[in-house]
Amino acid sequence: MTGAVIYLPVKILMTQEETMEKLTGACLFGQSGGPTSVINASAAGVFTEALKQDCITGVFGAVHGIKGILNEDLIDISKEAPGELELLKTTPSSALGSVRYKLADPDKDDSDYRRLLEVFRKYDIRYFFYNGGNDSMDTCNKISKFIQKAGYKCRVMGVPKTIDNDLSGTDHCPGYGSAAKYIATTFMEISLDARVYDTPMACIIEVMGRNAGWLTAASALAAYKGAGPDLIYLPEIPFTIEKFRKDIRGVYDKNGGKVIVAVSEGVKDSKGRYVVEMVKDDLAKDSFGHTQLGGTASVLADIAKEELGCKVRGIEFSLMQRCAAHLASKNDVEESFLAGKTAVIKAVEGMTDHMVGFERAPGLAYRCDIKLINLSDVANTEKTVPLEWITSDGTFVSQEFIDYALPLIQGINVTPLDEGLPKFAALKKIRIEKK
Amino acid sequence: MTGAVIYLPVKILMTQEETMEKLTGACLFGQSGGPTSVINASAAGVFTEALKQDCITGVFGAVHGIKGILNEDLIDISKEAPGELELLKTTPSSALGSVRYKLADPDKDDSDYRRLLEVFRKYDIRYFFYNGGNDSMDTCNKISKFIQKAGYKCRVMGVPKTIDNDLSGTDHCPGYGSAAKYIATTFMEISLDARVYDTPMACIIEVMGRNAGWLTAASALAAYKGAGPDLIYLPEIPFTIEKFRKDIRGVYDKNGGKVIVAVSEGVKDSKGRYVVEMVKDDLAKDSFGHTQLGGTASVLADIAKEELGCKVRGIEFSLMQRCAAHLASKNDVEESFLAGKTAVIKAVEGMTDHMVGFERAPGLAYRCDIKLINLSDVANTEKTVPLEWITSDGTFVSQEFIDYALPLIQGINVTPLDEGLPKFAALKKIRIEKK
Repeated sequence: MTGAVIYLPVKILMTQEETMEKLTGACLFGQSGGPTSVINASAAGVFTEALKQDCITGVFGAVHGIKGILNEDLIDISKEAPGELELLKTTPSSALGSVRYKLADPDKDDSDYRRLLEVFRKYDIRYFFYNGGNDSMDTCNKISKFIQKAGYKCRVMGVPKTIDNDLSGTDHCPGYGSAAKYIATTFMEISLDARVYDTPMACIIEVMGRNAGWLTAASALAAYKGAGPDLIYLPEIPFTIEKFRKDIRGVYDKNGGKVIVAVSEGVKDSKGRYVVEMVKDDLAKDSFGHTQLGGTASVLADIAKEELGCKVRGIEFSLMQRCAAHLASKNDVEESFLAGKTAVIKAVEGMTDHMVGFERAPGLAYRCDIKLINLSDVANTEKTVPLEWITSDGTFVSQEFIDYALPLIQGINVTPLDEGLPKFAALKKIRIEKK
Repeated sequence: MTGAVIYLPVKILMTQEETMEKLTGACLFGQSGGPTSVINASAAGVFTEALKQDCITGVFGAVHGIKGILNEDLIDISKEAPGELELLKTTPSSALGSVRYKLADPDKDDSDYRRLLEVFRKYDIRYFFYNGGNDSMDTCNKISKFIQKAGYKCRVMGVPKTIDNDLSGTDHCPGYGSAAKYIATTFMEISLDARVYDTPMACIIEVMGRNAGWLTAASALAAYKGAGPDLIYLPEIPFTIEKFRKDIRGVYDKNGGKVIVAVSEGVKDSKGRYVVEMVKDDLAKDSFGHTQLGGTASVLADIAKEELGCKVRGIEFSLMQRCAAHLASKNDVEESFLAGKTAVIKAVEGMTDHMVGFERAPGLAYRCDIKLINLSDVANTEKTVPLEWITSDGTFVSQEFIDYALPLIQGINVTPLDEGLPKFAALKKIRIEKK
C-alpha cells in the first residue's frame, strides 16, 4: 500500500432490471440522522447531477429532512451559486439541517404518509433522495411503498451516510473513512503526548458507536503505525469491569506503568448493561427513550485510577470525531459525492427503492464498484465488526481489519481556507413559495 | 489580512552587550512541562544549529529534562539521522521526554544544583538550553546563577514553550498559535454540527488555561468567521454560576433555543474557587473517594440542562488541543524552530541568562522580531489577556484580540504521511556512555 487510491471510473453492479421509462418532475433531497464530515459531499453529488438532468424540472432541498417536507419548508437549489455547492464537499454537518424523526407504521397511522404524498403531488416531486443511516433507509422504504400503493409515480433512492459504518449490504459507508482517519490520527498524537513523562499514567479514550465497533477499531490503525492504544474494547464483545481491571493491570505492569485504552461508548455486559449502568442502577434516560450514553470514559477512568493508583485521563472524542472535515479522507469525500450523483443517474434511468452501496473489487489495489441494494434488505439492519477480526482475548483487532480500513482513510481533501480557517459553504437557502 | 505571513529574516533586538568570548564545549538541551505540538520544532532548531557550530563539541539531549541530567540519562544527537531531526518539526509531544520537577531554593537545599554542576563538568557542558514555560525559565535562571557562583563557565538560554501563551516579555509563545488554530477550527466544525437539528440545544466546551484565557479566547476566531461560541468565559474575569445561568438563558431565548459556550478550565469566582468547588463544597469526590480533576464542562453542562431543560453536551478539548500537530500553524512551527536556532547562535556569540522572545513589528503586515529577555524578568510571572480586550459584560473578547491572534494561526504545516497517517520522528536515542 502506497497510499494511492484508485478512484473513478467505477463499475456499476445492477441488481434489478432498469425500467428506462422517462419520468419528468421535480427532485427532492433531504438529510437525516447524526451528521458526518462528508454528508454534504453527497448533497453536492445529488444537486450537481440533478441540475444537469433535463427530466428534472426542479431541484429542492428539504430543511431538516422529513420535517421540512411535512412543513413544506423547501429550498430552491437552483438559486445557489455553483461555488457554494462545490464548497459543500468540505463543509461538515448537514447543510440543509438534519432530523431524528421516526415515521409511524403506516398500517397503524398513515397521517404523515398522506401528508408527504400531498406535498409530493403539490410540488410534482418525482424523484426523492434521502441521505442517512439505518432509520433513514427504513423511512425511504416506507414512503416508497406507501406512494406506490397510492399509484403516485416517484422514484425513491437512499444515499448512505453514517460514521458508524453499520449499514448492511455495502462494503462500507460514506462518513466512516473520515471519522476513522480522525480517530487514527488523533490516537497517534495523543499516544505521543500521554507518554511524555516518566511517571505512570493511564488514558481511557471513548469513541462513538452504540452497537458496532467500527469507529473504535479504527484506533488500531494508530497502533499499526506504532502509536496507538494497548487495548481496544468493542461493543461486539461482552464487557466486564473485572476483566477490564485485569487487562489494564497486565499492560500497565508489562509496559512500565503506562496504558492507553480505546473503548466504544457502546460496550456492554452480557445482560446488555452499559458501563454507566453497571456502575449506577438508575441511569438517566434521554428524551427519546434511548439510554443516555457518554460518560463511559469517565467511569472507566475512575476505575483505572482505583486499580492502578496513577494519573488517569478520561477523554471523549465527542462531536469532533464526526465533524473534523479538516481531516476528511479524500477517498471518503469522493465516494460520498459519487453516491449522491449515482442515485440521481440511476433514478433518472428508471431505478427506484434502492440504496447506493459499495462493493470492494478483488485484488491488492483498492477499488470499490457501485452497487444498488434493495431498501428492504438494508433497512433496520446493523452490520457489526466480524467476530473473527477481533482477537481471542477480545481486546484488539486483527490485520484483516487494518487491510479493510486503511484504504478508506486515504487521500488529503484540501479544505479551502480564509485567513487560515475553513471556508464553509454558505447556502442562501431561498425558500420555495408555499403552494 | 490575506493569510500571508512574512517570515525570516527577522531582526534580532539585543538587550545586553555581547561578550564575544569564545567558549568551547558540549551543549545540552532539555524539554520541560506540558508538551505542545511544536516543542519538537524548537528541538530541531537547537540541534541543527548546534551540530553546525565548531565550538560545540557535542550535542546532547536530556531524557526527561532536568531528571535526565541528574540521572546522567543523555542521548547523543549527532547519532540521529538528519531526516529524523527534520521530522521533529511535525512531531507533537516532547521527543526527548518531558518532566515536571521543581528545583529547591538553592539557599535551602543545593544538592540538586551541585549534582547538575557535577554532570556539567563531567561532560564538559558549556551550553545549556532549556525549553519550557514559566517554571522552566525559573529553573534555567536558578541553575545559571548557581553555576556562575561556582565559577563554572556555561551559557544558559531559555527557549519558550507553552500553549497557554502566558510568558511575559514576549508578544506570544511558541505553541500557542497551533493550539489556537486547533481551537478555532474545531469550534467552527462543532458549531455547524451542534446546530444541525431544529431542536433546542446547548453545548459547553472546556478549553485549557488555568490562569490565562488566551486559549479559550481563540474560540473567538471561529465566531469572527461566523461559526463560533456565543459566550466566552476567561479566568481573567470572576465567574459566578448565577451570571452564567442568566447569560445562557439570554442567548438561548434570543437565538431560538441554541447556545454554544467556550469556557476556560480555570474560571473561578472572586474567592478563587473553581467551578467544581463552587458546586460541591469539598472539591467533588468521585465515587471512589479521589479528588475529581477537570470536569468544568461537565458541571456547567448539568447546570445548563437544569436551567434550559434542553439537550446539553459538555465537551473537553483535553489533550487534543495541545498535540494536534496535523493542524499546526506553519507560522508557529517556523517561529518555534527559529527560537531554538537563535538560542544557539546567540549563546555561541556570548549571550547567557536570556530567553528568546518575540516582539511584533509595527505595521499592518505581521512580522515578529526576535528579542532576548533576561531570565530574571520572565521567570515565574504570568501574562494574562488584557482586561481591555474583554467585553464589558465579561462574556466575549474584542477585535483587538482577533487582530492579535489571527496572524499566529496562519500557514499550513504539511505533515509527511505514511499510508495516510502522520509520519513522526523516530529518534534512535543512543545513550551517551556514563562517565
